[in-house]
Amino acid sequence: MEYKQIDSKDLKTLSSFVDQDRFYAGDEIEKDFSHDELGTVSAFPDVHIMVINKEEVSKIMAYAYKECIAVTVRGAGTGLVGACVPIYGGILLDTSKMNKIIELDQTNLTLRVEPGVLLLDIYENVEKEGLFYAPDPGEKTATIGGNISTNAGGMRAIKYGVTRDWIRGLEVVLPDGSIEKFGGKVVKNSTGYGLKDLVIGSEGTLAIIVEATLKLIPKPLKTVSLLVPFENREDAIAAAPRLIMDHVLPVAVEFLEKQSLQYSEEFLGKKIPHNNFEAYLLLSYDGNNEAAIDQDIDIASKLCIEKYNAIDVFLVDTEERRSSVWNVRGGFLEAIKSSSDEIDECDVVLPRSKISEFLKYVRQLSDELDIRIPYFGHVGDGNLHIYFCKDSMPKDLWEDKISKGFKLMYDKAFSFGGLVSGEHGIGYAKREYMKTLLGENQLRIMRGIKQSFDPKNILNPGKVI
Amino acid sequence: MEYKQIDSKDLKTLSSFVDQDRFYAGDEIEKDFSHDELGTVSAFPDVHIMVINKEEVSKIMAYAYKECIAVTVRGAGTGLVGACVPIYGGILLDTSKMNKIIELDQTNLTLRVEPGVLLLDIYENVEKEGLFYAPDPGEKTATIGGNISTNAGGMRAIKYGVTRDWIRGLEVVLPDGSIEKFGGKVVKNSTGYGLKDLVIGSEGTLAIIVEATLKLIPKPLKTVSLLVPFENREDAIAAAPRLIMDHVLPVAVEFLEKQSLQYSEEFLGKKIPHNNFEAYLLLSYDGNNEAAIDQDIDIASKLCIEKYNAIDVFLVDTEERRSSVWNVRGGFLEAIKSSSDEIDECDVVLPRSKISEFLKYVRQLSDELDIRIPYFGHVGDGNLHIYFCKDSMPKDLWEDKISKGFKLMYDKAFSFGGLVSGEHGIGYAKREYMKTLLGENQLRIMRGIKQSFDPKNILNPGKVI
Repeated sequence: MEYKQIDSKDLKTLSSFVDQDRFYAGDEIEKDFSHDELGTVSAFPDVHIMVINKEEVSKIMAYAYKECIAVTVRGAGTGLVGACVPIYGGILLDTSKMNKIIELDQTNLTLRVEPGVLLLDIYENVEKEGLFYAPDPGEKTATIGGNISTNAGGMRAIKYGVTRDWIRGLEVVLPDGSIEKFGGKVVKNSTGYGLKDLVIGSEGTLAIIVEATLKLIPKPLKTVSLLVPFENREDAIAAAPRLIMDHVLPVAVEFLEKQSLQYSEEFLGKKIPHNNFEAYLLLSYDGNNEAAIDQDIDIASKLCIEKYNAIDVFLVDTEERRSSVWNVRGGFLEAIKSSSDEIDECDVVLPRSKISEFLKYVRQLSDELDIRIPYFGHVGDGNLHIYFCKDSMPKDLWEDKISKGFKLMYDKAFSFGGLVSGEHGIGYAKREYMKTLLGENQLRIMRGIKQSFDPKNILNPGKVI
Repeated sequence: MEYKQIDSKDLKTLSSFVDQDRFYAGDEIEKDFSHDELGTVSAFPDVHIMVINKEEVSKIMAYAYKECIAVTVRGAGTGLVGACVPIYGGILLDTSKMNKIIELDQTNLTLRVEPGVLLLDIYENVEKEGLFYAPDPGEKTATIGGNISTNAGGMRAIKYGVTRDWIRGLEVVLPDGSIEKFGGKVVKNSTGYGLKDLVIGSEGTLAIIVEATLKLIPKPLKTVSLLVPFENREDAIAAAPRLIMDHVLPVAVEFLEKQSLQYSEEFLGKKIPHNNFEAYLLLSYDGNNEAAIDQDIDIASKLCIEKYNAIDVFLVDTEERRSSVWNVRGGFLEAIKSSSDEIDECDVVLPRSKISEFLKYVRQLSDELDIRIPYFGHVGDGNLHIYFCKDSMPKDLWEDKISKGFKLMYDKAFSFGGLVSGEHGIGYAKREYMKTLLGENQLRIMRGIKQSFDPKNILNPGKVI
């Protein structure tokens, strides 16, 4: 791909679109903006522009389009597959300051937000009104624009679905600078091809999200978690699909293992109660009626102990217990990251019936390749996060092991009906695996779609396809 | 568009792909297959082929692609916008005999079906296993392939979403005959562009659905409906968004009016209890816990009477009452159809806050244009079905009034943030309104998408875009 190298005339024009304190060029650009959270790929842009409204985005894009300058959009940079890294240089369009909550509509139960609003700010704003935005990705300091761009999933997918299910409408800027609306404050839509659903999960390659209309529901009055210890991981993992088979559908089913737990406890410097078991499921149930939740918990507890070989069931019902358990669960990625100088991640998703068999294979692989592979995951929805740790390995050996190990792991997953990514996306890092899985026909269609949105291929080039 | 006219060689080849009793040409083709349920557009195909498996579909498509023959897919023909009418002739590919339920997976809670399976057969098959497929479009004899192609919505969208939210995976035949899988038995997916979501709602213009993997959940143990009469329609319509605002989210909120009720009662020859009021809301609540449902009903009933001016609240709790009320509600379309020699339909969707104001405008339009416009609708989700009735009008006056009336109605809807279709699609009949709403940029993108899937434009030409 041939992009125009930014020259002094471009710098002058581009800088005229925004305030000077939001425009950085060359050496002024901080290193943080050359990589994402995982940092497996890095590259500096030529300019880093912090935009504050859609008009600025539109002007910048119209110019970039005319001049054929590469543009990469970045939110909070919490991604794990390099999607926000400007590998062709050009413009880094930073939407983190487009962080206004535009409108909470109590009648239509929608929230209109700019793309740079953080997930934690969305929760805070809607929950104080008794409302609920259900998607619950681990990284609460991600932006909603990033969540939409990866179709983020999170812990509550079993009951509430993923980000896609919570987006009613999008306003986007197309690569040529024009502004378009897809969907709206409506519950149903059968008006032509699903352009909104195409932008969701497209990792900033098709259009730039400048506003999103989120679906809300009344906030469940009560949520209770259960920490369920097992003698071994096999039993714990096997219990997750059985709970669902037995029709006691929880909000979340997370799998925790002694090792990941210890990493996280050490990293956070706090411990969870009952932390001396081999493996756990962490379940949660919610609802508006005490009796109904009590009934769910009662049935689930009995099943766990009587049918699934659980050792015990601990109620996580006080604010203190809840925050300690969920914080430790939430600290897994950070803890694993801090345990090795370099890590790489596999975000595979499988039919939940295959989780147990697949994880057995992962442990076998860890032995065969002699590499540390901690993992944790949303076992209730079949989405695992598996980490290869470099530890003290030399770089070439590490690269060799990742490449060999990832290929084997994905081949096994594909043979089980699994897909490359459950919620972190393809970005830069996972393109080859996606090609293997989807094949030339699907890639050809995807390239055609890319071409329809972005005929000059200036938007986030080198990503996804 | 230029398509090859089917000649004797084509007939011979095409007929060799299937059994002879599933192949009809020329005069053998029954009139029923020249139009859909509403019949506003009609055209005969040159051949009508009933396929029974994906291999047949693949062979037919590979041949049609090579020879450039137009192909239109048809399920049960229950559509209302002409999407299954072969306006360019060619092949009518009839999937109604691809009606096998392939697999009910109790662990992954998925159902794999062929596209010709009827909605009512899906309900029957999963409910006997204690499972639930939630989308509830009015027409239960529609095929699941048709439901997916229009992203059908139905009555339970407020709580459970629309067809899109219940499709985990699709297997499709592309226009060139190749077979591809999008998604799978997985809860989450961030693996490249959302091709599954693009095929959903594309009305048979992008690919032919040959298998779908549906999401299931445990069936709620109990469902209760409330029939809530009001003194006037304004009060009834205004109550729907208020219920949601007051956080007592029902499964369904249907609006019934005396007139539509009478049409349907006469048509079905049965009456609902308490049928002497001007307007009603029909609410339903479901769940697994008696106490929780009782609590919901109690709160909703109190709100209706004390805050929303309802006259009374009638519990629809016996099987007899439930079937009479919901059958009468389900008979609206048939009843209105039988009341006039010709009708045309508007399936607009609006933010639910605008329903009341919009229906006021529709009634005003009915007076101004001197045309009968009965309507009913899913007021809880903002989706209305509005019928223009020809009655005894001469044809040219009727056409003039539809054209004028629809334009005015859609312009008003668009000014409220409404969209052309909530669940019936664009097909042939609504293309102009979609163009007006979405504009050239979005149509250009949609044409590009169509081109990526179907470079020779042989699949359902003349529809959607």
